[in-house]
Amino acid sequence: MVNWSSFFFLVIPKRPARDLFDADEDSVAAVARMVQRVAVLLDSIFVPEGITILQSNKAAAGQDVFYYHVHVIPRLQDDKVSISYQVVEGLDLADVARRIRAADTNVI
Amino acid sequence: MVNWSSFFFLVIPKRPARDLFDADEDSVAAVARMVQRVAVLLDSIFVPEGITILQSNKAAAGQDVFYYHVHVIPRLQDDKVSISYQVVEGLDLADVARRIRAADTNVI
Repeated sequence: MVNWSSFFFLVIPKRPARDLFDADEDSVAAVARMVQRVAVLLDSIFVPEGITILQSNKAAAGQDVFYYHVHVIPRLQDDKVSISYQVVEGLDLADVARRIRAADTNVI
Repeated sequence: MVNWSSFFFLVIPKRPARDLFDADEDSVAAVARMVQRVAVLLDSIFVPEGITILQSNKAAAGQDVFYYHVHVIPRLQDDKVSISYQVVEGLDLADVARRIRAADTNVI
């Protein structure tokens, strides 16, 4: 069986933007709709076992092409894509909650 | 310095859906707009070095909560989040292209 995770699709907006912070909200919504269509098409053609949607902002997040783009990645059990998350000890969640409550909630 | 990657936000649609395949397109667009707002808010409060947007569909992609949801993950250089991709040898990209061309392009 071919490991389909060895390729992926990218969806980009017509209006250039560096990342999610720089993109206008209509472009973000249009890209999301196209991501869904691409995922459905990809699923129907290649029948992967799952699909990962990934979008990286700034180098610390692994962004290496500084144009807003969304990855649509076909997945198989035990493929060569690895996404892991290690719990960090000592986070003060009460402080996190306090900061959110204290923020300018007009943003949301 | 606190490792902000030890927490993340989830954005979910009001209308229940199992995953991206099951969600209606207006919900997908609305979630994407909210993801952007959450990312901007998170950036302004916690000043991470980057933000990862991740959305998983089906168990093979790591989905373990079967309700459409998008992760908004603050990132730092050298944090405990790892997203890696290993190139697989022997993929027939010409065959991939042929399958896409042969597909029902009404989907896109």
